Amino acid sequence: MKQFQVVGIGNAMVDVISHATEAALADMGVQKGIMQLIDMPRAVDLYGRIGPAEEVSGGSAANTIAGIAQLGGRTAYVGKVKDDQLGAIFAHDLQAQGAVYQTALAPKTTEQETGRCIILVTPDGERSMNTYLGVTEFLSPSDIDEAQMAQAEWIYLEGYRFDGPESHEAFARAIAACKAAGGRVSLTLSDPFCVERHRDAFRRMIRDDVDLLFANRAELMSMYQTDDLGTAMRAASAEVSIVAATESEKGAHVLWDGQHRPVPAIPTKIVDATGAGDLFAGAFLWGLAEGRDLETCGRMGCIAASEIISHIGARPEADLRALFQRHGVL
Amino acid sequence: MKQFQVVGIGNAMVDVISHATEAALADMGVQKGIMQLIDMPRAVDLYGRIGPAEEVSGGSAANTIAGIAQLGGRTAYVGKVKDDQLGAIFAHDLQAQGAVYQTALAPKTTEQETGRCIILVTPDGERSMNTYLGVTEFLSPSDIDEAQMAQAEWIYLEGYRFDGPESHEAFARAIAACKAAGGRVSLTLSDPFCVERHRDAFRRMIRDDVDLLFANRAELMSMYQTDDLGTAMRAASAEVSIVAATESEKGAHVLWDGQHRPVPAIPTKIVDATGAGDLFAGAFLWGLAEGRDLETCGRMGCIAASEIISHIGARPEADLRALFQRHGVL
Repeated sequence: MKQFQVVGIGNAMVDVISHATEAALADMGVQKGIMQLIDMPRAVDLYGRIGPAEEVSGGSAANTIAGIAQLGGRTAYVGKVKDDQLGAIFAHDLQAQGAVYQTALAPKTTEQETGRCIILVTPDGERSMNTYLGVTEFLSPSDIDEAQMAQAEWIYLEGYRFDGPESHEAFARAIAACKAAGGRVSLTLSDPFCVERHRDAFRRMIRDDVDLLFANRAELMSMYQTDDLGTAMRAASAEVSIVAATESEKGAHVLWDGQHRPVPAIPTKIVDATGAGDLFAGAFLWGLAEGRDLETCGRMGCIAASEIISHIGARPEADLRALFQRHGVL
Repeated sequence: MKQFQVVGIGNAMVDVISHATEAALADMGVQKGIMQLIDMPRAVDLYGRIGPAEEVSGGSAANTIAGIAQLGGRTAYVGKVKDDQLGAIFAHDLQAQGAVYQTALAPKTTEQETGRCIILVTPDGERSMNTYLGVTEFLSPSDIDEAQMAQAEWIYLEGYRFDGPESHEAFARAIAACKAAGGRVSLTLSDPFCVERHRDAFRRMIRDDVDLLFANRAELMSMYQTDDLGTAMRAASAEVSIVAATESEKGAHVLWDGQHRPVPAIPTKIVDATGAGDLFAGAFLWGLAEGRDLETCGRMGCIAASEIISHIGARPEADLRALFQRHGVL
């Protein structure tokens, strides 16, 4: 048995969550519903203009790994923080959840700080993300422990990290070490605009290395440059063994071996959509690592996503195993 | 018209909120339901043992001032943070709420960090607080701007700050400047064990300077060394013009001029009791500054407290004015 069921690699961030009206978003020049990269001066300016906030550990892949850890999975996370207060908060929250987190800290003298994502939640529960990457931008091949990757049944790569040139090499190193030891590779496309920025690199990795692709509707359509989800799903399915596509309140689709199984969403009042896709992936991967069939993995993903959107913050508050039992999938 | 309706002085803290069972509390040596002062090594040890947490600005008097600001009151806060990430979070959240916050920052080179309070919430919603004071312990007379105190209709003093010797002098300076300009003084007793530690100093201040005393049942009985709330309330009422005593799910009592008016609590499911007393005081003071009668001030206090206990965190999430309108007090 390998030490880890899933090792995630991504942007290590602390979320700064505040509420804002649509008018306030427009006023602050924030585009609704997507992730925008911002620099430190913009981060300072924007922070000065938002309302009171709360801070919770975030980061897309880190949320996924936190979900797997809460489910009792054997899991680890790789992502860079600084030796500062936000970095300590990030590391604590993953470790306290039961995940292994041991990435080297950027020293106190580093100019950049630990990354943060200013998330503005509108009354409809939609989140608009403004990401100051900080030190997590500098995740490089030397941060990848090949022995750890060899001990992973699955690695889980966060598409957002394609925004860093050295991280492409870091991903390549992780993939090589994982595959050489018989492990498999999963990838999330993260964001439609991230796909725009890196379509060719994503496409190469999908064709050459990816065994399981996570994407939402907008990301998948951007990837395959079509405005029809069915077309995009079929194109993806022709390139990857397993495709798990999420479609917000319509649920999800799992495609493999010519099969296409739609999975219904769990009806839930949306308080904050942040982390829905991350926890879908976490629950799906955990189910897979536990030997469940792909349709059940999809159902677990939808149940976990419904928990996350019912409260502020992107890490689970309720006991996911208990939820799975209540829904008859565990 | 004075610039400020209320200026609060207290311990500037960021709350680190996590969930724990009663068994876990015992295991970690945390006493349930009270505030314990801890040093940095204990804070580090305890933080390493608690589960994932979220960070929100706290501090008893700061919560009160945030509530007044949210209600639209003219308010300011004095409390010491360091020039670090948690200090920036604390300052941001008060300013973003509309309060004036301008206390001099302890420089980056200061050994102590910004104070934090590790709050463990048990399944019954009760909070057990573990406070590392950090730089807020060093609030001193030089941090008090006499001109600001002279511009306050009310100052609001946090009993917890009696734990710092220099803060007694800081309070004395604030009281003198406020009273000389015709302002009035309110005090919260904060915690029964804090009362034990400083009974004589509290007593002197109550007799000599305090116009309005906030206390919960346990604090008031500790103050007057009796196990009967009625006796304690009568004793307090003989020494202070206005007494506002809270009694958890039983509501509150307002006493003045020989009058005693009980005020019912608003029945609410308790998620996290942190900040209930702070927001009671905030709403009460705001009502008073707006010229409302004392019984209405008490009702506003109970309504605001019911909002705070219905969610995690000690700052209001719902619109308090809208709540007051719904309950017919505005």
